Amino acid sequence: MPLFKKLVLTGACGALGSQLREPLSRMTDHLLSVDISDCPEDLHDGETFTQADIGEMDQVLPLMEGADMVVHFAGIPDEAPFEKHLGPSIVGSYNIWEAAHKHGVRRIVYASSVHAVGMHPSADGIDLTAPHRPDTFYGLGKCFTEDLARLYWEKRGLEAVCLRIFSCQPEPANMRALGTWLSYGDLIRLVERSLNTPTVGFTPVYGVSNNDRSPVNNHQAAYLGYKPQDNAEDYYETVIATARPADPQDPSQMRLGGPFAIVPLGESGVAMIKKLGEQSN
Amino acid sequence: MPLFKKLVLTGACGALGSQLREPLSRMTDHLLSVDISDCPEDLHDGETFTQADIGEMDQVLPLMEGADMVVHFAGIPDEAPFEKHLGPSIVGSYNIWEAAHKHGVRRIVYASSVHAVGMHPSADGIDLTAPHRPDTFYGLGKCFTEDLARLYWEKRGLEAVCLRIFSCQPEPANMRALGTWLSYGDLIRLVERSLNTPTVGFTPVYGVSNNDRSPVNNHQAAYLGYKPQDNAEDYYETVIATARPADPQDPSQMRLGGPFAIVPLGESGVAMIKKLGEQSN
Amino acid sequence: MPLFKKLVLTGACGALGSQLREPLSRMTDHLLSVDISDCPEDLHDGETFTQADIGEMDQVLPLMEGADMVVHFAGIPDEAPFEKHLGPSIVGSYNIWEAAHKHGVRRIVYASSVHAVGMHPSADGIDLTAPHRPDTFYGLGKCFTEDLARLYWEKRGLEAVCLRIFSCQPEPANMRALGTWLSYGDLIRLVERSLNTPTVGFTPVYGVSNNDRSPVNNHQAAYLGYKPQDNAEDYYETVIATARPADPQDPSQMRLGGPFAIVPLGESGVAMIKKLGEQSN
Amino acid sequence: MPLFKKLVLTGACGALGSQLREPLSRMTDHLLSVDISDCPEDLHDGETFTQADIGEMDQVLPLMEGADMVVHFAGIPDEAPFEKHLGPSIVGSYNIWEAAHKHGVRRIVYASSVHAVGMHPSADGIDLTAPHRPDTFYGLGKCFTEDLARLYWEKRGLEAVCLRIFSCQPEPANMRALGTWLSYGDLIRLVERSLNTPTVGFTPVYGVSNNDRSPVNNHQAAYLGYKPQDNAEDYYETVIATARPADPQDPSQMRLGGPFAIVPLGESGVAMIKKLGEQSN
Amino acid sequence: MPLFKKLVLTGACGALGSQLREPLSRMTDHLLSVDISDCPEDLHDGETFTQADIGEMDQVLPLMEGADMVVHFAGIPDEAPFEKHLGPSIVGSYNIWEAAHKHGVRRIVYASSVHAVGMHPSADGIDLTAPHRPDTFYGLGKCFTEDLARLYWEKRGLEAVCLRIFSCQPEPANMRALGTWLSYGDLIRLVERSLNTPTVGFTPVYGVSNNDRSPVNNHQAAYLGYKPQDNAEDYYETVIATARPADPQDPSQMRLGGPFAIVPLGESGVAMIKKLGEQSN
Amino acid sequence: MPLFKKLVLTGACGALGSQLREPLSRMTDHLLSVDISDCPEDLHDGETFTQADIGEMDQVLPLMEGADMVVHFAGIPDEAPFEKHLGPSIVGSYNIWEAAHKHGVRRIVYASSVHAVGMHPSADGIDLTAPHRPDTFYGLGKCFTEDLARLYWEKRGLEAVCLRIFSCQPEPANMRALGTWLSYGDLIRLVERSLNTPTVGFTPVYGVSNNDRSPVNNHQAAYLGYKPQDNAEDYYETVIATARPADPQDPSQMRLGGPFAIVPLGESGVAMIKKLGEQSN
Repeated sequence: MPLFKKLVLTGACGALGSQLREPLSRMTDHLLSVDISDCPEDLHDGETFTQADIGEMDQVLPLMEGADMVVHFAGIPDEAPFEKHLGPSIVGSYNIWEAAHKHGVRRIVYASSVHAVGMHPSADGIDLTAPHRPDTFYGLGKCFTEDLARLYWEKRGLEAVCLRIFSCQPEPANMRALGTWLSYGDLIRLVERSLNTPTVGFTPVYGVSNNDRSPVNNHQAAYLGYKPQDNAEDYYETVIATARPADPQDPSQMRLGGPFAIVPLGESGVAMIKKLGEQSN
Repeated sequence: MPLFKKLVLTGACGALGSQLREPLSRMTDHLLSVDISDCPEDLHDGETFTQADIGEMDQVLPLMEGADMVVHFAGIPDEAPFEKHLGPSIVGSYNIWEAAHKHGVRRIVYASSVHAVGMHPSADGIDLTAPHRPDTFYGLGKCFTEDLARLYWEKRGLEAVCLRIFSCQPEPANMRALGTWLSYGDLIRLVERSLNTPTVGFTPVYGVSNNDRSPVNNHQAAYLGYKPQDNAEDYYETVIATARPADPQDPSQMRLGGPFAIVPLGESGVAMIKKLGEQSN
Repeated sequence: MPLFKKLVLTGACGALGSQLREPLSRMTDHLLSVDISDCPEDLHDGETFTQADIGEMDQVLPLMEGADMVVHFAGIPDEAPFEKHLGPSIVGSYNIWEAAHKHGVRRIVYASSVHAVGMHPSADGIDLTAPHRPDTFYGLGKCFTEDLARLYWEKRGLEAVCLRIFSCQPEPANMRALGTWLSYGDLIRLVERSLNTPTVGFTPVYGVSNNDRSPVNNHQAAYLGYKPQDNAEDYYETVIATARPADPQDPSQMRLGGPFAIVPLGESGVAMIKKLGEQSN
Repeated sequence: MPLFKKLVLTGACGALGSQLREPLSRMTDHLLSVDISDCPEDLHDGETFTQADIGEMDQVLPLMEGADMVVHFAGIPDEAPFEKHLGPSIVGSYNIWEAAHKHGVRRIVYASSVHAVGMHPSADGIDLTAPHRPDTFYGLGKCFTEDLARLYWEKRGLEAVCLRIFSCQPEPANMRALGTWLSYGDLIRLVERSLNTPTVGFTPVYGVSNNDRSPVNNHQAAYLGYKPQDNAEDYYETVIATARPADPQDPSQMRLGGPFAIVPLGESGVAMIKKLGEQSN
Repeated sequence: MPLFKKLVLTGACGALGSQLREPLSRMTDHLLSVDISDCPEDLHDGETFTQADIGEMDQVLPLMEGADMVVHFAGIPDEAPFEKHLGPSIVGSYNIWEAAHKHGVRRIVYASSVHAVGMHPSADGIDLTAPHRPDTFYGLGKCFTEDLARLYWEKRGLEAVCLRIFSCQPEPANMRALGTWLSYGDLIRLVERSLNTPTVGFTPVYGVSNNDRSPVNNHQAAYLGYKPQDNAEDYYETVIATARPADPQDPSQMRLGGPFAIVPLGESGVAMIKKLGEQSN
Repeated sequence: MPLFKKLVLTGACGALGSQLREPLSRMTDHLLSVDISDCPEDLHDGETFTQADIGEMDQVLPLMEGADMVVHFAGIPDEAPFEKHLGPSIVGSYNIWEAAHKHGVRRIVYASSVHAVGMHPSADGIDLTAPHRPDTFYGLGKCFTEDLARLYWEKRGLEAVCLRIFSCQPEPANMRALGTWLSYGDLIRLVERSLNTPTVGFTPVYGVSNNDRSPVNNHQAAYLGYKPQDNAEDYYETVIATARPADPQDPSQMRLGGPFAIVPLGESGVAMIKKLGEQSN
């Protein structure tokens, strides 16, 4: 029996959102998938699709009507000039939370990012008490939204789980990703637990698989019951075969944010990663 | 070969004590089972039974003669008026420790409770350095006894392991118990390790199974080697089928103590749980 | 203009309580001084006296009628057998809190003690997050009452400030007291701030003067505004003149509890101190 | 001899900015005072004034030319709807940092606020490692700007000191302000040290006077040498004379943010304070 | 394909070094095995052997030519008079690091020891932030070398992983080793990950197997991906059969360093262990 | 009346040792001043002088006969090649502690240094729990000796206070020293308290004056009662007049160790400081 009457999924046509449509559709009578693009041809049982720009409040408000919870994955998945992030990452987040509040939505599960804490050294083994240390305007937007989420919880009782997603890809494709990989299966497990835990208040959690080399610690969010099952180490032989030798002082190896820790502010991290012959963020 | 010549088990006829009789009997030449009730018909090999009220020193003293260690599980397993807890929880604890000291008993393994720290939010992911935050007079008695145990260790060298038992039931029966369940098998494992670890000084430890959603962290007591093997998540489908929707602000979901976090002081928490149609404490 | 209509002071005829009668009488229209002894001949303006045993609920209940706040200093100011502490330290504390709750009293300012944390090494420089480590049954009663106070705050909204009083004496009389002295003037300052701070919830605070060698840190309770003004170092020349050489391993120098850290459980610490030719606890 | 060739002061005509004009003018050959209003008639030696809206990049850029450091105090000093804060608090902050970076400005001293951490309980005695807990959209803008400042330091080497200003008023006017008052003199001292410390990286610091009841701890920023000299306690008699009795559960007393901790999001906190007959934020 | 052109292994003929020769030989084109003894008859593919005393700089320098990384396991594996440790543990460590620096070696993987932190109580459950607390001159040499390694990383960019090896033996042979055992297989896994992690800076890590009773916590070094696979508990029945009863106050059970925590400074711990009829250090 | 029969002062003719001779001579019947140089012409009452090289055990042993405590200030006060530090900093420390142990000396007060933790950022506001982070071979020798001191305390009961001396000079002479200055008067106060505190176990403490800008926190050692009275800020006008502008990324401003944080290992830091036109270490 589905847990929910209505769930809203934003960014439903993105790389990660499209992984979530099917599993979410099984958890709810009605899944409202939303994206700025006009995309999916095939809808799952109980799924409907609406095209909307989350930067526009009048497009966001009607989405929330009757929703139990929102899975908010819309946004620009790359570093870009501040002006480009302002709409989706700042104003868009406000629109989602304010609209959800107005419609009595109970909880938002948010695609935050490792890049909210990307300047922390991997060797610090941080847990969830580590402060924000964004590595890009992209990460700065995540920091803003996490603080917004905390504010709405503390002042208005709107729950939030902020998933600090690491390298969510089909496979780990470089040495860093041996630690930072998040498999699609584990992403789905994480979202499911974030939805079915009875009360969550405001909870950040690291979204990373059960990798031998996972550099972060989720113990403060243990009550969510997120237990990843995939391990990037299974891909070690493939990865090592093409690994470039790292410089001992290379921040893109030493900082959690990887290449985003060295990309110039406002320039595409994805483009830089490609230039380096790598895959992941 | 049994590790001990004599073990004493108090509360031997209680819900938890009766789970321990058989496994303890295999660890010792002589198991002295004690309860305020006149109960067990069938005794295990090497087991004898004595009826005694731990609130009375003259009944407690003779029990300890020749004992290596004591497994102290007697007490009122529910919230009740302070006057009712005074005897078993306060005076009774003193009697046990003082009598053990007088007879040169080496160690006491004590059934403390999550309710000694029940007002901590589950989302804090506390470890064993968290301070006492009792949720009831029941929990207050556990706090008192833990402090008493520490005093006897530091002043008199009497060792103690304080098991902060969570929801010890045959099966997890509600959403909270997906995190807080302690299976009988894991209870037994926990008591065994508490007895066979060479030195323990004063050690508190959380008594909770290997649940995906376990909200607490035992790493400071790692040397005890308590490795739970059961996982409440195996019961997820059954539990979710009858779960009541939780209010986002419901303290009985957000605090470790669960329903005890909201029961009025002195009133039965078990009765309230039944009224809520739930099972666990 | 007095802040209060009615304050209750228990232990009003004790060494410390008698220091508080006059200053408290200036803060309230009516000061009800209470003691188990039949003592003070001279009453201050607005002060009345009632003889009562706090171990008896029927004697405690009527005291609380109409009281704004309670300053609870009654108790046995020494180590003694557990049976002797049970009445005043355990039952008495319950009586005070329960009676205060029944009469809608807002706050209790409680004479806790360093001996609730007396087994901590002085060299650890503990702050207010340090766990209970009682050194005596006396200290154990303080631990119990602090936990009781926290419980009544968290479940019933009854505020409490727990003053962990160190060596409160006219003058510091030994090397340890150069660190642990609490002057009468600073005791009064501490009680005044504990009463006039708008909200306090549950707050423990160390009661020690502004000694050069003060071994503890009150920063978590900074909002209370307790700023001691006396300094035991002013007595250094007198103290050093009669100081006994200390053994490097002497627990009575190394532990916060001083001589109470070595006195056998249940035996008078004050008698031992006198035997040692010293003064303070 | 002035330390600087050119300083820029934004918000120069605000309540706090106008306190800084004279002391800053003495530290620099040229003080460029900036405000959105057309205000000061009397300019100090070396001071010039430019009217500019920091929400507009083309107005901000030219201000920075040749500046050594910026003292950024512009903004809306009250809670207001998010849309109103977006320009000055979000876009404006970006404009200031980006323009400063483009012109090689070395350091920005920023008027952050207690409201970036306003939901923390006063009784926690937080230090500078406490995470953001904004109490309003106003506080959320401060959180955003602090994270932006950290990002520009870590990626671009632009230094920042973020002054978390508490109740900056001529005099403390209520009980809360006995702890949270920041005198104008201490504000000036804080800004001076923030400017003359050789290197600062990214440093947050609490802006509060040397009040007996100051609820926060600056020890991590000790190297700045901020030593406040005023003490709100000097005003105790005046304040207590008009103090309203506080409810024990009143968040506006228990949370660092005071009335902002209870004002509805988007509504004027200043108006609410006035309604309560109080003064401070 | 081997990761390295040349690795240097010192102490190659010791109990642990000899376990590493074969696996290291598979990771590199050339393995240079070094020992003060003239030992191995059978060399692995790509392995050469050189006899050298690491206490002599002129013998150490040529070893490092062309090496990518060094696995430094030479030293006296026992407590001994300070004069005996001075050469191998102090001067030898300096020689290795200085020679490595001169030849541009990238990283040193060092056999540190639990005895660098051996005076910490097992019951503290320490992690990698615990300070040095050596139990012997042996442990003091390990502390020195760890600090040296940190210095060379921070001032000269020479990476180091310091393996705090616990009881590395074929099998656990006593109760303490149920917690402290490091199997040879896990030792090899630990060294491999220490070599193939892209950047490590300065990283200490505890070398202990996946024992139920492992008393320490490696979470800060999680990014290394050390995942031990052996568990001393598999040997419980054998161990318990011959276990001596422990005294509750026995430091050799309560301190991480075991028998080294009680051996007189400068005397052989191995000899004492044998006298006690035990095996492990 | 002097506290001691015999004190030993090593390094008695050094810049700091010579400040201590007179005050120490007043605390003891006999002050034995020791130095490798043949120096002081004028001896104080009760003072005798012996020339000795602490690197030679046979010269050290006789010094300790009958001594109550040792004030150990000998050593090379500058960075130098490791070989030069080996004798005085490593072997010399061992000689002092071993000889003291053999003669039953109770306590050693040791001139450690900020350079034992010199690589910590000033902006971290570290306290005494911060780990060793030496900046030079000089600092490494201090780390070694502190660990040695802890070992002798924990294994042999020989007490030690390790004074991490900052910039001990007649006057602060640069911006860094506004935070790191230790006046001669405060040095003497620190040594006096280290000698007259009854028990000290193993205690490190930062040796820095009561500077506004002091970057470190001694609260864990509060029980020592070290209360510095001088403040480098009194010299601000002089210092600022000759201050060089600092680079925002200058490690010699950002790290506690100052110029030692950038001096090449083994090269004179004092020479580099002079080259920079500065004074302090």
